[in-house]
Amino acid sequence: MPVYSDPVDGVVVDPVGLEAWTVALLDALDTPDDIAEDVAEVLLAADRRGIASHGTARLPNYVALVDAGVMDPAARPSVEREKAALSLHDAGNGWGHHASRVAVDWSIDRARDTGSAIAVVRNSNHYGIAGWYALRAAAAGMIGLSFTNSSPLVAPTRALRPLIGTNPIAIAAPAGRHGTFCLDMATSTIPRGRIEVAARRGETLPVGWAIGPDGRPATVPETALAGALLPLGGLEETAGYKGYGLSLAVDMLTGVLGGASFGPNIVGLFSTAGPSDLGHAFWVIDPAAIAESGTFERRLEGYLDQLMSAETVPEAPGRVLVPGEPEAEAERRADERGVVLDDRHLGSLVELGDRFGLPFPLVEPA
Amino acid sequence: MPVYSDPVDGVVVDPVGLEAWTVALLDALDTPDDIAEDVAEVLLAADRRGIASHGTARLPNYVALVDAGVMDPAARPSVEREKAALSLHDAGNGWGHHASRVAVDWSIDRARDTGSAIAVVRNSNHYGIAGWYALRAAAAGMIGLSFTNSSPLVAPTRALRPLIGTNPIAIAAPAGRHGTFCLDMATSTIPRGRIEVAARRGETLPVGWAIGPDGRPATVPETALAGALLPLGGLEETAGYKGYGLSLAVDMLTGVLGGASFGPNIVGLFSTAGPSDLGHAFWVIDPAAIAESGTFERRLEGYLDQLMSAETVPEAPGRVLVPGEPEAEAERRADERGVVLDDRHLGSLVELGDRFGLPFPLVEPA
Repeated sequence: MPVYSDPVDGVVVDPVGLEAWTVALLDALDTPDDIAEDVAEVLLAADRRGIASHGTARLPNYVALVDAGVMDPAARPSVEREKAALSLHDAGNGWGHHASRVAVDWSIDRARDTGSAIAVVRNSNHYGIAGWYALRAAAAGMIGLSFTNSSPLVAPTRALRPLIGTNPIAIAAPAGRHGTFCLDMATSTIPRGRIEVAARRGETLPVGWAIGPDGRPATVPETALAGALLPLGGLEETAGYKGYGLSLAVDMLTGVLGGASFGPNIVGLFSTAGPSDLGHAFWVIDPAAIAESGTFERRLEGYLDQLMSAETVPEAPGRVLVPGEPEAEAERRADERGVVLDDRHLGSLVELGDRFGLPFPLVEPA
Repeated sequence: MPVYSDPVDGVVVDPVGLEAWTVALLDALDTPDDIAEDVAEVLLAADRRGIASHGTARLPNYVALVDAGVMDPAARPSVEREKAALSLHDAGNGWGHHASRVAVDWSIDRARDTGSAIAVVRNSNHYGIAGWYALRAAAAGMIGLSFTNSSPLVAPTRALRPLIGTNPIAIAAPAGRHGTFCLDMATSTIPRGRIEVAARRGETLPVGWAIGPDGRPATVPETALAGALLPLGGLEETAGYKGYGLSLAVDMLTGVLGGASFGPNIVGLFSTAGPSDLGHAFWVIDPAAIAESGTFERRLEGYLDQLMSAETVPEAPGRVLVPGEPEAEAERRADERGVVLDDRHLGSLVELGDRFGLPFPLVEPA
């Protein structure tokens, strides 16, 4: 995930207060309290980890879905089918974050006995940052993988229009004194939000990010926004078909395997035209099942040491990073001095607070 | 995997004869016959699927490893640790293809009971094309994933030198009348072999394929060959850190999890300096565990229909393809009219035949 730099002229909010307020807001939407706590925890994790596009900034979208009756805030997920190491969960068109927390916990519990397990979720909604569920497995000492399909925003190689999602892959594992390895990536070159930022700043785009409505590489943000994102790898000559293949692989493990919607059939995640019927999957492996406890972490720690101390190219903006470092650094900063919200984000939350009689927590200038 | 076009002025060999000859050659190296049959089947699959870099062209390299005593052609893999859905196999520094066939079969068998399972292999050698093992699961009606680490040829984002492998990911599944979905991709932008081809043809390289020894993008093939491949996504601005992260994820699921070698510590796969101690992993999911039999295939078939009939960009060289189509087409062609070998490939096999008293099968001009 891209870590967004803190907005200039933003305001600072205490993450603990923001989480409590989010729970209260979700309660006011008729979300049962235990479900509201799961949703708020995942949203705050995004805000704290610098992924503002996937945190509380999404609350107005969620409220609109509940208002329109296309999502059921009180739904409880149920296990539809179950084997020792594979299960299918029906999210009941409720909160994706809660159904996914339940599903990854199923996988963690099973992996303790079987060594590995995967839980697939159907009939779900947006689940926030993919990495949160992988990190939950890592916190239990295991390797966690998290996958979801999503709205069609990406053009397959050679295709003119967006037909597949930015379908992310996250993988996390404990890494000793380096904390946690956490790769959390969309299978498109970049997320749509980054093009929106470029549009606001009047920047041009590198070839490989997007195509315009005419199918040609788009270097002007407005043209890209009217066209489609490109899969990781960009154009065909730079192996964009690999990112396209990865996006399909994620859809196969989520929507197709789970019997949810997939590809071009998915209704936009934040569209009120109908339920999204998303699919997610959570795969967990317990390294302690095949090695002495702590061995895996020590090996990974040593590997990351080798990478972080490697000689760099002349123009490198810093040393070699490992996946999850920028997000972990943002998290440390947020927990020390608060989460920074931009004007639009703050305004939308204040407005929701007014509507539901939940005054927004005190803020101070950043 | 890139499907190489058939060599001009090549010779045609009957794949059945080539496979029998390969088995005899492996037998002559003191490989037990059942192991030789597995190795030959995987190598011929590469030749038939148009992936000449991973088939019988590698036999001289394998023979050199056996000659040098750094690989044991008679080794039999053993299961070291085992839970219901996770196992660790020691390949005994023997043929990677055989240990991997045994491991994926373990996963297929277990997945029938548990719904999903993963087998990890350590102390192994080159296993040929990643896709073969995924295809084996697909032939059993399941979703198969295959991962391996490999020689350090790729520079992590910002790093000057190659420290990680092209670590491939393969995923296959039954797709109804479309045959089999099979994504088989290195996590680098392109394989080293493609730069060697560009060098022979005097072509320039697009930015994003490789860097030179100075760490700058290499557009001259010779500079690239002296430098390092770039991960999928290319440079940092086009999200090369995602391909880098995927390569690490594969290493984590294979070398790090299995207790094999990993990253910069791997001795070149075809180096006679010492054993490679590679790690592989094979993950299998049985869709029939959570849906009526045949449902998964029908959904995937419908999805591929939507993609294959999509409107294309103006310069598209053909319709939208789905992963595995070029390889399946090459396979059909090879089974109809034989496998086409170039001069160097043929010469090296004739030479091996002479040495081991196994005259190379009759060939005819392509």
